[in-house]
Amino acid sequence: MSKIWANSGDSHLVEPDDLWASSLSTELAERMPRSVKDHDGAFETIYVDGQSFRRRMPKAFMMVDEEGKSVSEKAPGANDKELRLVDLDQEGVWAELVYPSIGIWMHSIRDVELLAAGCRAVNDWAIEYQRFSPRYVCTATIPLLDAEHAAAEIERAAGLGYLAAFFSVTPGLGVRDWNDSMWEPVWAAIADTGMVISFHIGTEAHEADVFNGGYARGAGGAVINYVDTTYGGQRAVTRMIASGVFDRYPSIKAIVSEGGATWGPFIADRLDEGYRQHLSLVRPRLSRLPSEYLYENVYASFQHDRSAVAAMTAMGWQNVCWGSDYPHLEGTFGHTQKTLHELFDDIDPAAARRITVGAFEELFPGIPGAPANED
Amino acid sequence: MSKIWANSGDSHLVEPDDLWASSLSTELAERMPRSVKDHDGAFETIYVDGQSFRRRMPKAFMMVDEEGKSVSEKAPGANDKELRLVDLDQEGVWAELVYPSIGIWMHSIRDVELLAAGCRAVNDWAIEYQRFSPRYVCTATIPLLDAEHAAAEIERAAGLGYLAAFFSVTPGLGVRDWNDSMWEPVWAAIADTGMVISFHIGTEAHEADVFNGGYARGAGGAVINYVDTTYGGQRAVTRMIASGVFDRYPSIKAIVSEGGATWGPFIADRLDEGYRQHLSLVRPRLSRLPSEYLYENVYASFQHDRSAVAAMTAMGWQNVCWGSDYPHLEGTFGHTQKTLHELFDDIDPAAARRITVGAFEELFPGIPGAPANED
Repeated sequence: MSKIWANSGDSHLVEPDDLWASSLSTELAERMPRSVKDHDGAFETIYVDGQSFRRRMPKAFMMVDEEGKSVSEKAPGANDKELRLVDLDQEGVWAELVYPSIGIWMHSIRDVELLAAGCRAVNDWAIEYQRFSPRYVCTATIPLLDAEHAAAEIERAAGLGYLAAFFSVTPGLGVRDWNDSMWEPVWAAIADTGMVISFHIGTEAHEADVFNGGYARGAGGAVINYVDTTYGGQRAVTRMIASGVFDRYPSIKAIVSEGGATWGPFIADRLDEGYRQHLSLVRPRLSRLPSEYLYENVYASFQHDRSAVAAMTAMGWQNVCWGSDYPHLEGTFGHTQKTLHELFDDIDPAAARRITVGAFEELFPGIPGAPANED
Repeated sequence: MSKIWANSGDSHLVEPDDLWASSLSTELAERMPRSVKDHDGAFETIYVDGQSFRRRMPKAFMMVDEEGKSVSEKAPGANDKELRLVDLDQEGVWAELVYPSIGIWMHSIRDVELLAAGCRAVNDWAIEYQRFSPRYVCTATIPLLDAEHAAAEIERAAGLGYLAAFFSVTPGLGVRDWNDSMWEPVWAAIADTGMVISFHIGTEAHEADVFNGGYARGAGGAVINYVDTTYGGQRAVTRMIASGVFDRYPSIKAIVSEGGATWGPFIADRLDEGYRQHLSLVRPRLSRLPSEYLYENVYASFQHDRSAVAAMTAMGWQNVCWGSDYPHLEGTFGHTQKTLHELFDDIDPAAARRITVGAFEELFPGIPGAPANED
């Protein structure tokens, strides 16, 4: 089997356990999110921002594959700068857009100063991966409880060398949504620095003590939760488009990672129908049809979806990116080449190249190019 | 321009103001939803199930097209059995799946007996349209606060001649979701009667006094709300598929009306990814991949979306139906032929026939066939 090389629009690091202790004052470190597990692993106590509560370990965090292996057992190199490259080479993954894993807990914090300090600590740590290899395009975690701290960290992160800003799909707890004018300084900072807004799905702000790794209960819950996680990314870019962010800042680009891609042409058509048919209610009017911003300013990454390829080849969305989701179980680690061949063997090579390599290179033009595919 | 004939998977009646007074006891009628508008039309008082509250008229209900015309001014024949057929003939719409308009308010009722009585009254009224012309395939409104009343009304409605059961995209207020085993008698009744489950988007159960015609505020609100309404239908069929409803009752068919169609292949791929990659957590296991139920048991209607055509022609979903949304402003009334020509002139005639006519005929095989297109 020939080897297909691909860039990944969605990959992950997992922060070390001592990240807060080694980077923050004791007073701040103690308020940052941490889990203390019982000896038998069945329960844990969560501490975050002065709250603590005990709960049964969520099934999702004990998740294993069909062979009983956890994420860290499957991919021990995930948090080792050198070993990770060995995994990537073996899988045929060249450059990656790399998210931290702490995001889901960061979004339970309500103290703007605490959150900003936590983001600085995560970002000071993650940039070392990018400094080790330009194949790691790391995302800077942005504190999204207010625009002032967010814009400041965007500018600081750009100075550190970050090319991408990790945004949760909703702003922080209790804060107005992306269509609100309060975010204007953030869009200005993004446009000014040229960073790519990187939304990762499943990052809705939530109350730590009521969230338990998923929302649906009972029959079909695992699959239902998996599908439900996709809507947040669509909601986020819908708010940016409808409120005119891309109209005011045409250079801003946003990617939605891990949410699939076929939703793009769908949301584009739906935006246009709402815009045209409800035009008497539409504020602000936009200079172009909403679908044009989606097709040009918005990108998306998928792992296995066959329809995502057709979203580009049959529906014309050029911004479809493949992603590995390494090292997570939803991803392709261990079967990347099989997946890439199934997706791309029967389609036009130029289209395959665009999805595996080209769209990513357009987002991050300074990254070394992926090798040619190998026979 | 030649005339294309199409069936519509999404159309509406508007109940007469005296529906409750003429069909229910005074005691019940007074508790059913009604709006009393101020003389200047700027405020209204809503009465429903013992609650009442005054509010500014929601913008969406005052909505007019770009020429300043409201729905009832544009389509005065919508609630006249004979005049409506004149409109349909002129537009080139043959048969229609027809929803009532009261649904959005029915879903604020918490009293099971009151809701069941209201549904009986609506259904006894709407069936007269279907009796007047078989081109009106009316939907029976089902009371979805409990399974017992729901199953009883499904059986009663089937006896009246209904072929389709109108389900809100969520069950009634505070009731467990579609993946819960409490709904088993409802699925059994649907399978037994052969009725098509007809989900109409925008029908989430809601507290009457906090809902104001939409959820997003501020910049882009009209467009954001329009996009957000689509997710409910996707959530509903995801819950049915993941909990095994179509596995246990393979004959059940469901349509999602007005939510677009390109989401179908997307949700199918996402269901499969969640099912395969999280298999160790999946309960129940299904006899087939979840995508197969979506591709075979689920249908959807769209109005203007170009990508919806490609969802069939390039992604293989045979169950894409066109819909007019007559007489609503989101629909095609006044420009139906223009829309149909734009959508279908350049595609394979067999595929066009499937979307405009065939998928609908498969759902409702007893309805007289649409005329051939006219040169």
